Amino acid sequence: MLERYAARYRHELVERVVPFWMQHSLDRQAGGYFTCLDRDGSVYDTRKYLWLQGRQVWMFSRLYNELEPRSDYLDVAALGLRFIRAHARDPQGRLYFSLTRDGRPAFFQRKPYAAVFYMMGLLEYGRATGDVACLDEAEEVFWRIVEWIAHPELLDRPVLAGQPPASSLANVMVLASMAIELWRVRPDPRYLEVMRQAVAGARQHYDPERRLFMEFAAPPGGELAAGPEARFFNPGHSIEVGWFLLHLLEFVEAPGAREMALDAIEGSLDFGWDRQYGGLFYFMDVEGRPTLQLESSMKLWWPHTEALYAVVLAYRLTGQAGWLEWLERLDTYAWSHFVDPEYGEWFGYCDRRGELTHTCKGGSYKGCFHVPRFLLMSLQRLQEA
Amino acid sequence: MLERYAARYRHELVERVVPFWMQHSLDRQAGGYFTCLDRDGSVYDTRKYLWLQGRQVWMFSRLYNELEPRSDYLDVAALGLRFIRAHARDPQGRLYFSLTRDGRPAFFQRKPYAAVFYMMGLLEYGRATGDVACLDEAEEVFWRIVEWIAHPELLDRPVLAGQPPASSLANVMVLASMAIELWRVRPDPRYLEVMRQAVAGARQHYDPERRLFMEFAAPPGGELAAGPEARFFNPGHSIEVGWFLLHLLEFVEAPGAREMALDAIEGSLDFGWDRQYGGLFYFMDVEGRPTLQLESSMKLWWPHTEALYAVVLAYRLTGQAGWLEWLERLDTYAWSHFVDPEYGEWFGYCDRRGELTHTCKGGSYKGCFHVPRFLLMSLQRLQEA
Repeated sequence: MLERYAARYRHELVERVVPFWMQHSLDRQAGGYFTCLDRDGSVYDTRKYLWLQGRQVWMFSRLYNELEPRSDYLDVAALGLRFIRAHARDPQGRLYFSLTRDGRPAFFQRKPYAAVFYMMGLLEYGRATGDVACLDEAEEVFWRIVEWIAHPELLDRPVLAGQPPASSLANVMVLASMAIELWRVRPDPRYLEVMRQAVAGARQHYDPERRLFMEFAAPPGGELAAGPEARFFNPGHSIEVGWFLLHLLEFVEAPGAREMALDAIEGSLDFGWDRQYGGLFYFMDVEGRPTLQLESSMKLWWPHTEALYAVVLAYRLTGQAGWLEWLERLDTYAWSHFVDPEYGEWFGYCDRRGELTHTCKGGSYKGCFHVPRFLLMSLQRLQEA
Repeated sequence: MLERYAARYRHELVERVVPFWMQHSLDRQAGGYFTCLDRDGSVYDTRKYLWLQGRQVWMFSRLYNELEPRSDYLDVAALGLRFIRAHARDPQGRLYFSLTRDGRPAFFQRKPYAAVFYMMGLLEYGRATGDVACLDEAEEVFWRIVEWIAHPELLDRPVLAGQPPASSLANVMVLASMAIELWRVRPDPRYLEVMRQAVAGARQHYDPERRLFMEFAAPPGGELAAGPEARFFNPGHSIEVGWFLLHLLEFVEAPGAREMALDAIEGSLDFGWDRQYGGLFYFMDVEGRPTLQLESSMKLWWPHTEALYAVVLAYRLTGQAGWLEWLERLDTYAWSHFVDPEYGEWFGYCDRRGELTHTCKGGSYKGCFHVPRFLLMSLQRLQEA
């Protein structure tokens, strides 16, 4: 059965997802990638969104490094890399959120995530080519991100008296994900320390009763005020942190962390699954109070891709049959809601009932990343003997 | 028939909407208003969101001034006014977006709208009490808003080379709405000039083929780049600008503007109405391309309250029966989707099919404003002999 999944995922990746981006996203004229692509690949917005530029550089470099060293993969990665190195950083070295088609800055977001994906792109491309300048810049940006997360005023986000510091699961997650990749390329013990801190951070977010990671937790030595943040659950993030932790634990030892990660994946699936219409909710209030976000009950593609890889990994690590039941349930949901048999790549956005709200394959937050990453990583695990 | 609407709207306002806010939103302990109220009025977030603090001060002052001079209305207004005057402005005189329950700053948004509603609250309260300091501060804030809109870097929003200035319908609208109110209280000819500019601005946004106001338009002397902004239509805003214009035209003369406003109300209803499931869409791309916002196909309460008042007003001004058909259609939709027969006030958020996605009556963007404002203004027009 696993071989059937592996064959299908390989076909989806190589024949239907990667070609979509190669055919429609490359801006050979101005450089970089179009990501706002409608169902058939037609461009509906020419802006270059930095989260997605960095992610696509990362993805094509990773395909080159781990699927097949095809020169056209590396060529696609280089197209984006040149563009972002030329245009993505502001005079202070921070990262813009979006650029015009030709690279002029369009929006600055007071968050560190554009930098995260810029850094990941540089690193994976450097891994592919051995380009030392890329690796050096990746390291430089990594340490600046650590600083930006600790001191958000450096990103022009004022630190206000009524916003006591809280630990954000998104930040725990991105630091961990970057440190894993850095350690593989440049084994500096400081990256192991970041990984150890990420495990400790994840423990702060873990709710042992519900068996899931909450999105916000008390900061070290502090308390988290009651309110919507303290009740906020993002099933996709919680599951993604679960598999990041399982990756981390290949490099650092942490008693009980593997069980916590596996429990969090299962608990997040249990709590996040919509028993009425199927699919994983986007956002939830764990006490069932209203959320402040309008899109909470929607079903997005990416929590499902994260969950699919997480259960493949969990099955590989444990051999427990329960994970295969989740794999089948998630796979069925994803294939019947997000996969597009006609044009390739996946739809991204459904309402609670599972009806498409948007026909696009990409936008300002969806690009060449979650679908091919999950397919690549899953087939790598599925093929392990 | 109009008398039946008037009686029903008065009952809804006085017996079911205003009491909800009087019973559940007042924070007698720390001052200001709770706005994150679940269906039954229970508080799910104690933060004080500034858009909504200012709006509720305005609303209760307006009820005092125009519905009935009840001391308890003025008392509710004063509760919020004292709180925001004590806590809402930063050391530079700008407005925070949210505060903790006890008034410490929690978030600063790089937009002028918190200031708009702060100013409106001060002005209407000053109108109720004759408090000159309130009126003076309202004027001071108004002119700062004019400056903030012209120079967004004063709100820490960097002006970037890739974001050429565009005219925003929201800004045209708020300047117009403030100028109308200011002119009634302090007849300075500069406010008439702002109103004339708002009419000119609205003309820039008007699409004569589709008969609606587009959300973004070319700035004076410039061009608007092709892309999602140039195709973006917000039916609720477009309709709201329609009735603001009709109000403006009581004070300034502008050839053809009345016909444009009436056409825009009708055109926006035609284009914005969902022919499959009913209700007005939240956001649309006029060419049917995907929108970047996830919540576009949702049905929100406020475009419907704006439309209800707009058609009441349009009928009063024209006597044309077509507006009564829209009144009936909108009223039926609103009463069957948003009105809560059990606890009062209205629900705010449905999916495209019209099923509730949130049980709340208020949140970080919904408070004591759109529903009571539309009810009060509509019954005033309906009662005109």
